[in-house]
Amino acid sequence: MIIIGERINASRPRIKEALEKKDDKFIQNEAKAQVEHGAQYLDVNCGLSGAAEVEDMEWLIDAVQGVTDTPLCIDSPDPKVIEKGVLTARAKKLINSITLEESRYSKIIPLALKHRCSVIALTMSEKGMPDTADDRLRIAESLYKLMKSEGFADEDIYFDPLVRPISSEPRQAEELLKAIPKIKSLGNVKVVAGVSNISYGLPKRKLINSVFLSLALSAGMDGAIIDPLDKATIGAIRATEAILGQDKYCMNLIQGHRKGLF
Amino acid sequence: MIIIGERINASRPRIKEALEKKDDKFIQNEAKAQVEHGAQYLDVNCGLSGAAEVEDMEWLIDAVQGVTDTPLCIDSPDPKVIEKGVLTARAKKLINSITLEESRYSKIIPLALKHRCSVIALTMSEKGMPDTADDRLRIAESLYKLMKSEGFADEDIYFDPLVRPISSEPRQAEELLKAIPKIKSLGNVKVVAGVSNISYGLPKRKLINSVFLSLALSAGMDGAIIDPLDKATIGAIRATEAILGQDKYCMNLIQGHRKGLF
Repeated sequence: MIIIGERINASRPRIKEALEKKDDKFIQNEAKAQVEHGAQYLDVNCGLSGAAEVEDMEWLIDAVQGVTDTPLCIDSPDPKVIEKGVLTARAKKLINSITLEESRYSKIIPLALKHRCSVIALTMSEKGMPDTADDRLRIAESLYKLMKSEGFADEDIYFDPLVRPISSEPRQAEELLKAIPKIKSLGNVKVVAGVSNISYGLPKRKLINSVFLSLALSAGMDGAIIDPLDKATIGAIRATEAILGQDKYCMNLIQGHRKGLF
Repeated sequence: MIIIGERINASRPRIKEALEKKDDKFIQNEAKAQVEHGAQYLDVNCGLSGAAEVEDMEWLIDAVQGVTDTPLCIDSPDPKVIEKGVLTARAKKLINSITLEESRYSKIIPLALKHRCSVIALTMSEKGMPDTADDRLRIAESLYKLMKSEGFADEDIYFDPLVRPISSEPRQAEELLKAIPKIKSLGNVKVVAGVSNISYGLPKRKLINSVFLSLALSAGMDGAIIDPLDKATIGAIRATEAILGQDKYCMNLIQGHRKGLF
């Protein structure tokens, strides 16, 4: 599966501090560690820092690119910040994210097409967050039609079906798991998600997140936005791949174990 | 899900020793601990001790019944040992096991019917172990027809689809996961299994077993023969139930966490 490393995100206090101090060594260590632990994309998010966010994104990407050419997942709700990220990043780019809200997609779609970026489309509309699997499918279908009509290739379309907590809404996990194959039936598109919301408000969050990740992979999810340094998460991924017959001779499992990655 | 505690099994050296020394305290502690950790059945297996096995089964069950009335899962390939177990056990009995081999089922079926026992039927025939999901279904179907024609109620029929290692046969896990809903489509029967074979020959066996257990529960498995004292296993079960909406208000998860069960 596709691992999108989530650690370079200014919602983490240490990243916020590194951004403020322009501590590129710290950022670079985070980038290198995630790649060593299996990240195929590095998410870069410089938080909601207002006008400075555009400059911060440029600095952050320059810092990361000082040590790795790993593709970047450029993460902001602000099209100006995304644009700066796209122009700064050298390798394959994944934009995180658009929604079915005109303010989110109208500027990003032409930008992504012009620069051949892939895009994560959240299954969210002006009416808010989806409840059921079919709600998610309906929004994904509208986004798919929109993106296809503009000229996107299927393989550049990543849907994020939006994981919601089971503590307040016990059926949310089932709805999300059911949504995965439905969304994938739209075409040769991918489904990726952050998983940690699932356990919000509960004890043993890492355990719940890992189990949910295994179930989502088994349901056909292609990738996840996770912390590749978290051994429970990587262990769950490697074990699930081996069980599902996606890891030839269990080599990733065995090598990851030898390297002490989980 | 139904937890069948696997610890009282003479293949474990400490249990074998307790049997030889008739150390009922040790057996009773194993029984109590498993019940405290959530076992709804206790498997009792006194190994292949030849002629002594019949007496050993009686002693073992008497020892367990000295401290708990938890239903027993009477585990032996030998009909004589099973019979002694059935006659000795007081609470609801689950016989472990029959196969589609005449030598295994011909004596057990009348015994089970006479004493109103449930029975675990392994999806194994004279031709050996099944490879595919459909092989498992075919054997289960033959066993189901046989047991129904003899007068079994659906709810007393437990199928064990036989977990095999992914290290030597990479597609075995998928075949087993596919077999679960197929077997359950036969009627109101249950599917239970031991899971630890899945990881034979691989590192990180507990991790692989836990992930496989989560995937099997998600596929509809009703229970498993496991070690309830193993925190990774119980954690995987409780987290999976919460995610699948089978744990109202996540209370089992929260209480299990508070009690330190995982």
